[in-house]
Amino acid sequence: MHDLLFYFDMAGVFVFAISGALAAVRKGMDLFGIIVLALMPAVGGGTIRDLVLDQPVFWIVSTHSIWVALIAAGLTFLFARHLESRMRWLIWADAAGLALFCVVGAEKALVVSGSPMVAIMLGVTTGVAGGVIRDVICNEIPLVMRVDEYFYATAAFFGAGVYCLMDYLGYAGPIALWAAIATAFTTRAMAILKGWRLPKALR
Amino acid sequence: MHDLLFYFDMAGVFVFAISGALAAVRKGMDLFGIIVLALMPAVGGGTIRDLVLDQPVFWIVSTHSIWVALIAAGLTFLFARHLESRMRWLIWADAAGLALFCVVGAEKALVVSGSPMVAIMLGVTTGVAGGVIRDVICNEIPLVMRVDEYFYATAAFFGAGVYCLMDYLGYAGPIALWAAIATAFTTRAMAILKGWRLPKALR
Amino acid sequence: MHDLLFYFDMAGVFVFAISGALAAVRKGMDLFGIIVLALMPAVGGGTIRDLVLDQPVFWIVSTHSIWVALIAAGLTFLFARHLESRMRWLIWADAAGLALFCVVGAEKALVVSGSPMVAIMLGVTTGVAGGVIRDVICNEIPLVMRVDEYFYATAAFFGAGVYCLMDYLGYAGPIALWAAIATAFTTRAMAILKGWRLPKALR
Repeated sequence: MHDLLFYFDMAGVFVFAISGALAAVRKGMDLFGIIVLALMPAVGGGTIRDLVLDQPVFWIVSTHSIWVALIAAGLTFLFARHLESRMRWLIWADAAGLALFCVVGAEKALVVSGSPMVAIMLGVTTGVAGGVIRDVICNEIPLVMRVDEYFYATAAFFGAGVYCLMDYLGYAGPIALWAAIATAFTTRAMAILKGWRLPKALR
Repeated sequence: MHDLLFYFDMAGVFVFAISGALAAVRKGMDLFGIIVLALMPAVGGGTIRDLVLDQPVFWIVSTHSIWVALIAAGLTFLFARHLESRMRWLIWADAAGLALFCVVGAEKALVVSGSPMVAIMLGVTTGVAGGVIRDVICNEIPLVMRVDEYFYATAAFFGAGVYCLMDYLGYAGPIALWAAIATAFTTRAMAILKGWRLPKALR
Repeated sequence: MHDLLFYFDMAGVFVFAISGALAAVRKGMDLFGIIVLALMPAVGGGTIRDLVLDQPVFWIVSTHSIWVALIAAGLTFLFARHLESRMRWLIWADAAGLALFCVVGAEKALVVSGSPMVAIMLGVTTGVAGGVIRDVICNEIPLVMRVDEYFYATAAFFGAGVYCLMDYLGYAGPIALWAAIATAFTTRAMAILKGWRLPKALR
């Protein structure tokens, strides 16, 4: 079961890295910029999570994610043209990556801190912080905070929240993990299909 | 005495969070953006301080600050209109928050590192780094580094510096804390009232 | 031999700090902005490296770098006019700083993690991350990721890579250090003289 999680995780890293690499291509950056912006969404959120939890940074312990992100950056560098026309496919893969990242992040934070509040915050951080850094480096307001994004952080919040709830109710392990991942993915998918968005403040 | 400090601290978190939430509202961000930008000034500087000092991050140890910042974000979301017209009141509350943050940050850094230099740097960091992150995410040159700001970082510097000086002279505990907080607040308040600003470089 | 390395290191900090201070002057920032932007390139990359490696942050252990960066900021504040006309001299000093930072960073990361992959990543990070933060705060796309920069990160990559290779081949200590530093400096110098740049993605 954890093998399946590992392959999902690498798939999430791959797709997140492509999102960053494509942003770099769109900004006309060079190969180094493409690599850095591929790494940010792929490992940035998890790095902040591990630093805040005072745990060994996951890509120091095992460099799999780095290699996968580098391969994604290289492929994007070579085939950027073809990838852009497959944006629709990428959005769904990205939703899967987000669902996985936020739940795995929440699980780790819950084990270390014991606080559902911290678990939800760092679950969302794992899912979205790398993308925020990507957008900040690209000199843009982060996509995840804009009204034109469909429940991105919200999906991560629901995923992390459902995991904490199930853990609290005693459904530990794979059941809680997959239920939470399904919740996050469904939330994001429905929001994209139905056009759901978070409101702005009343002014 | 430390109870009083706790309530002051929460008040500082509350006002700093409102400053971030209002920035998000002004940029037309959605509710998630408002929450993130509320959290940045409220807990960002202290998080960097704790990471650099290799101490447990304060909001992992106790989540009070997070709750207060979330409440501030929620209230700003609902009542942004009314808050904007009370900007003058907010500036003074912000000055109080800054004074407290920089001195409490300097105290913690001095205890851990023993170096006044490190204490002053991390005191200023605690006071201003969260606001810098807020402005960077908003895609703006940080307010605290601009000539049109009145002694913001300078007030934090004086607050942290006076605390270190009094500690060096043997006035430990509450006396040093409150004298330093008063120094920082007075510096900022005088600068606002008199229009004092830091100079630009001669060119 | 390590004394020589120390003086080189301080010279690198000095020049990197000037690069940040000048960026702040160009943006019309005040004295505090000049100090912050001087500190970012000077100690920012090494700080991230130490946090990720879970090592004590180097400028907490020894504040030499902070003092040198503050002096550089002060001199830039006073003599910005004269420095700008010496940009050509600064570029070469910056290349030397980059060469040293990336190799020293790679050495530290290799000792702590034992992984050449991690060593190269954190070597490059030590060399360029501070400059990225400087540019992000200045609200600009980081120079190091733009096509108009000559092999900046590439030079850091070669420096860190050569160090790891020589370490792997058994040439530990000063020989590996200086060979790697020479490689990084030569790469950067040749790229500047010959106009070498990294390619953009094909679109």
